[in-house]
Amino acid sequence: MKNTLGSSVCVTLFGESHGAQIGAVLDGLAPGIPVDEARIARQLSLRRPAGKISTARREQDEFRIVSGVFEGKTTGTPLTILIPNADTRSDDYRRGAPRPGHADYTAYVKYHGFEDYRGGGHFSGRITAALTAAGAVALTALERREIAVGTHIARCAGIDDAPFTDPRTEIEKLNSLAFAVLDPARGEAMRTAVEQAAAAGDSVGGVLETMVIGLPAGVGEPWFDTLESLLAHGLFAIPAVKGVEFGDGFALADLRGSEANDALVLRDGQPATATNHNGGINGGISNGAAVVFRCAVKPTPSIRLPQRTVNLQEMREEELTLGGRHDPAIVHRARVVADSVTALVLCDALAQRYGTDWLRGEPG
Amino acid sequence: MKNTLGSSVCVTLFGESHGAQIGAVLDGLAPGIPVDEARIARQLSLRRPAGKISTARREQDEFRIVSGVFEGKTTGTPLTILIPNADTRSDDYRRGAPRPGHADYTAYVKYHGFEDYRGGGHFSGRITAALTAAGAVALTALERREIAVGTHIARCAGIDDAPFTDPRTEIEKLNSLAFAVLDPARGEAMRTAVEQAAAAGDSVGGVLETMVIGLPAGVGEPWFDTLESLLAHGLFAIPAVKGVEFGDGFALADLRGSEANDALVLRDGQPATATNHNGGINGGISNGAAVVFRCAVKPTPSIRLPQRTVNLQEMREEELTLGGRHDPAIVHRARVVADSVTALVLCDALAQRYGTDWLRGEPG
Amino acid sequence: MKNTLGSSVCVTLFGESHGAQIGAVLDGLAPGIPVDEARIARQLSLRRPAGKISTARREQDEFRIVSGVFEGKTTGTPLTILIPNADTRSDDYRRGAPRPGHADYTAYVKYHGFEDYRGGGHFSGRITAALTAAGAVALTALERREIAVGTHIARCAGIDDAPFTDPRTEIEKLNSLAFAVLDPARGEAMRTAVEQAAAAGDSVGGVLETMVIGLPAGVGEPWFDTLESLLAHGLFAIPAVKGVEFGDGFALADLRGSEANDALVLRDGQPATATNHNGGINGGISNGAAVVFRCAVKPTPSIRLPQRTVNLQEMREEELTLGGRHDPAIVHRARVVADSVTALVLCDALAQRYGTDWLRGEPG
Amino acid sequence: MKNTLGSSVCVTLFGESHGAQIGAVLDGLAPGIPVDEARIARQLSLRRPAGKISTARREQDEFRIVSGVFEGKTTGTPLTILIPNADTRSDDYRRGAPRPGHADYTAYVKYHGFEDYRGGGHFSGRITAALTAAGAVALTALERREIAVGTHIARCAGIDDAPFTDPRTEIEKLNSLAFAVLDPARGEAMRTAVEQAAAAGDSVGGVLETMVIGLPAGVGEPWFDTLESLLAHGLFAIPAVKGVEFGDGFALADLRGSEANDALVLRDGQPATATNHNGGINGGISNGAAVVFRCAVKPTPSIRLPQRTVNLQEMREEELTLGGRHDPAIVHRARVVADSVTALVLCDALAQRYGTDWLRGEPG
Repeated sequence: MKNTLGSSVCVTLFGESHGAQIGAVLDGLAPGIPVDEARIARQLSLRRPAGKISTARREQDEFRIVSGVFEGKTTGTPLTILIPNADTRSDDYRRGAPRPGHADYTAYVKYHGFEDYRGGGHFSGRITAALTAAGAVALTALERREIAVGTHIARCAGIDDAPFTDPRTEIEKLNSLAFAVLDPARGEAMRTAVEQAAAAGDSVGGVLETMVIGLPAGVGEPWFDTLESLLAHGLFAIPAVKGVEFGDGFALADLRGSEANDALVLRDGQPATATNHNGGINGGISNGAAVVFRCAVKPTPSIRLPQRTVNLQEMREEELTLGGRHDPAIVHRARVVADSVTALVLCDALAQRYGTDWLRGEPG
Repeated sequence: MKNTLGSSVCVTLFGESHGAQIGAVLDGLAPGIPVDEARIARQLSLRRPAGKISTARREQDEFRIVSGVFEGKTTGTPLTILIPNADTRSDDYRRGAPRPGHADYTAYVKYHGFEDYRGGGHFSGRITAALTAAGAVALTALERREIAVGTHIARCAGIDDAPFTDPRTEIEKLNSLAFAVLDPARGEAMRTAVEQAAAAGDSVGGVLETMVIGLPAGVGEPWFDTLESLLAHGLFAIPAVKGVEFGDGFALADLRGSEANDALVLRDGQPATATNHNGGINGGISNGAAVVFRCAVKPTPSIRLPQRTVNLQEMREEELTLGGRHDPAIVHRARVVADSVTALVLCDALAQRYGTDWLRGEPG
Repeated sequence: MKNTLGSSVCVTLFGESHGAQIGAVLDGLAPGIPVDEARIARQLSLRRPAGKISTARREQDEFRIVSGVFEGKTTGTPLTILIPNADTRSDDYRRGAPRPGHADYTAYVKYHGFEDYRGGGHFSGRITAALTAAGAVALTALERREIAVGTHIARCAGIDDAPFTDPRTEIEKLNSLAFAVLDPARGEAMRTAVEQAAAAGDSVGGVLETMVIGLPAGVGEPWFDTLESLLAHGLFAIPAVKGVEFGDGFALADLRGSEANDALVLRDGQPATATNHNGGINGGISNGAAVVFRCAVKPTPSIRLPQRTVNLQEMREEELTLGGRHDPAIVHRARVVADSVTALVLCDALAQRYGTDWLRGEPG
Repeated sequence: MKNTLGSSVCVTLFGESHGAQIGAVLDGLAPGIPVDEARIARQLSLRRPAGKISTARREQDEFRIVSGVFEGKTTGTPLTILIPNADTRSDDYRRGAPRPGHADYTAYVKYHGFEDYRGGGHFSGRITAALTAAGAVALTALERREIAVGTHIARCAGIDDAPFTDPRTEIEKLNSLAFAVLDPARGEAMRTAVEQAAAAGDSVGGVLETMVIGLPAGVGEPWFDTLESLLAHGLFAIPAVKGVEFGDGFALADLRGSEANDALVLRDGQPATATNHNGGINGGISNGAAVVFRCAVKPTPSIRLPQRTVNLQEMREEELTLGGRHDPAIVHRARVVADSVTALVLCDALAQRYGTDWLRGEPG
């Protein structure tokens, strides 16, 4: 199940950057969930490159749902979304000069040279368009249970965004922004920094912070399917993600227990944590507080500056200067992918706990 | 498969802190791997509390292998290790006052009060003894293929250890130390800081850094079983781990692409990365360099200082002062657990790639 | 997950015929299910050999539950049952002369001679004692939802039992019998036939018929986890089972559609099938009728008559005459194993459909 | 993973009878396997209805491979085959009158009326076209290792075909026949019987017998992934299959051990079974002999004769007379589906045992 995420609700991805079509099969989602194509299109547009801080490749992402939806709602059987690749320029790529920081060399070793190397093939960030489309359906399903997911660019090119202060409102706002920040001024500074890096033929990275509101307590497993394990499993599959931390994350390493523990108090007559250093998860199981985590996104490996690599045919070192169209940053585009992975993982965990029909939001 | 990690080589954990026995079933490992009980005992001793910086609970961990080993070698069928619980003081625990930072409250919600709450029950760090014993066998298997795994306390109580400089030698050294640091002087400073926290009724956290030497290139899958996903899945199941990062991890977010990319060069006539900012993994697949990652370990949630919590029977807030025996730090004990998880995950990924028999180190 | 059955509720088996202990880990079952040790003991006694028609090996099956039960009820975390091997006579076995019809030769090839060959090792029917103990807990869970499972020896040594006429009553009756037949006279004839085969140094086979009452409609998946697929997967793992058929099974091949289709009618105001040629399953999903299936059990391969085999050390043919203690029939002992597998598979399918807590029989 | 078969090599099916497209994603197959579209087309033509004994629905099955093949060979990443539905007549179907013997009622219960009910929707035999296309690739892969799979109609409408006598030659012959029998005269008699049933508005069933030549010994797992379990899991997902038996199957129940055991002898200096009552599998693991099994195929449930059913909207009984286009037998069309499932299951089991690359037929 190499290209599949999840066990009760699961998504399988297929396709290559320069192949005929990419797509996703979403299986196990409850029947009766409304599927809004405009919503899917909107999510795809948030992932799509735009302006000077993204690649010049322009895909309309004219997706088509070919199974699993009937009369506008999920059937409960596999929902398949296809997205044709249109704007491909395969001549931009040649075999045998693996791009540093990309999967070119590792794919070559793993697949013995049979891989479709054009544009990164199956490893291309292009495939996240299919993931985003499937994630849009999962996000809709979660909303039936009033579970909201949102991500902001917490840091980009060394510049921090403002923190969440009123998550439910802010999540709604973020989900309409192409460059998702809580403080527009800092967002502007980030964009300027990205453009500067682009002008230098270079690229930048950043940190995404995701918040989940409304997840019931009691979701996740002790060993080994902790909620952190399940989320991290999906998040580390997003290209360029090299770190994941929950709650205060690495900063917890420097706290004392008396600072890191979240006291339990009564809120509206129910137990709740007074603080949220643990990111809404204790012992691998949701505690009812907001689930909060951050993903480190490395700078895009495709840069215009010359780099050293090895010509695999002739087994000699050479200098590589990339042509083609590239993103000087992907952290803003990866945002909606993080939301999608999160939604898919949560649908899976919820279906396991409460059964297939729970996400319908009605008695089964 | 809630308490199972892996698909080709997998480990299932069972048991509770104050139950009769804990244990692990290790399934799918190649036949013919020597099982050295002294090695298992040594790994268990590294995990066992010792001195002033650990709990006073003393378990001899007198494990017993009851299946899967014949004439000193693995049979290839499930290998079961049992460890009796001896030194339990169940009176130290009472129901209904969930300890902040622990799984007490989340387990209560998830299991509706039917969970064995004594000492954290199935969520207790005690269960990692069984994981360590299984991991010892997996580590032996990897050594048949000259793959070495080692972890040091990269940071504790705000104090950094020295970095790796000669990994293969240092790994061997680390694996014999009860408090695994590369620089003994800094280790001494860490220990002093832990003792000070303990004296204050408090606890500290830290960061573990793991290095894997000798892993072949080509291991891992694109979506979604990246090597990072598989490792993070297991590592986030270790109690108190709240962050995982590969290579330069979160620091990559602040680099430019020209700094973060690892150039490819020829070394001994083979392609290799000149640097290792990506932690030996590109596109989710090992590239032949050392695999390097860090885990953030939060401070032990059990502290002697009074804390606020909610009495679940009477649904009212109350102050909690923990009796019992606790660790003022667990980062040094978690070290061998990180090695164990790493070894188990790698055995699984290698068996999937090269087949069941590969770890025997002989032609199948 | 080689020795594990199920995904939401799953059982892992370990141990060898002549090893220290055998056992089972049952994971994912709802918390709060009463665990009655007397019930487990009774199921084990039904599997245990008895009288002239079984092996002379006598195991008391003094099982011990070491995890997953607290205050008499399941905790929801892994439930581990250990059964020590006591009455082993390893001298009865020698290496290198694979017994025809057994797994000796295939295990030798698969495990390269590292397998514990004594008494069939991990392949021994002995391991079904652990499966039976786990199954007893699963059967109790099903009863909370008024789902009853029962099996009779539909055929043995060429003699047919009477068919089910009043299943719910008959299931209760069958579950108390050591030799489970609906017609005692035919059971007596079967036993006589088994004794005759035993006297001739030979063995006999038979057919088991299992009936499940009370399973809700809507359980199972289209492709590929049909209810038939899930049940057959488990049933074919029972040693000696070589055929599985649902409803009229192979007899359906000779019917016409007008005879094989089960008309839908209203019964108590609800849709129901008028007949049950399809064994309660259409399109892989339960239809609310009784689920009925049959397993073909081959004659016990261990016989006293001389047989031809190959000495693997010297690679020459030789004649083999088995010493040791053997069953002239196992169909009567396999009955309770079929019930156990059925119960475990159904608990898994129900947990997937309705969530973890459904089997508790109370609102989650 | 509801609509997925396999774990190392796996296939996911999607689509509905009257939806836009059906398809399959084949993941985990070795890179470098030649993909011959003519071979896929030929397999699809063998499944396609033809002549008086099949439905009048005519689909050209103009499949398209949109991912996973590059320069004519598998890449090792997901291979996706799409097949558009062209000749659909949805007006033939109406909601709410479940057809006896079909999944209409069970799908309605499971999916709460949200299922695409037209033509059986996702449960339609139509979906097996996608399975057949994926199976064609798997069969090609097996041939790289000289493993051959073939199936004949062992029985249809009460008429037996001749048995296999020279399997490797006969398999090649069978794989070119639209109506796969070993004895053409008996095949003619079967066809006449099918036409007679069709003329009477009725349908017939049959038995398929599959043979696998060249599978190495040592494939399969003890508990619970026996080779029989894995194959049966897939075979029972083929619509209309209600029984599966290996070797002598149900006939073994009436044999004595001395008759049922396959003696081991030396053949070409290697251990081999003298007979094959056990169908090439002992203890769940292949023994090197031909793997032989039979599937019972029930008569097509769609018949023109009037049947009783329940109108689910008005909750009253009614008589149903099916219009539409139906098969009076599907056993001849199901043949190639059995081959496909078999090939997919074997590729999975072989990849697990020998690693991802083994099926390439070259050193990895």
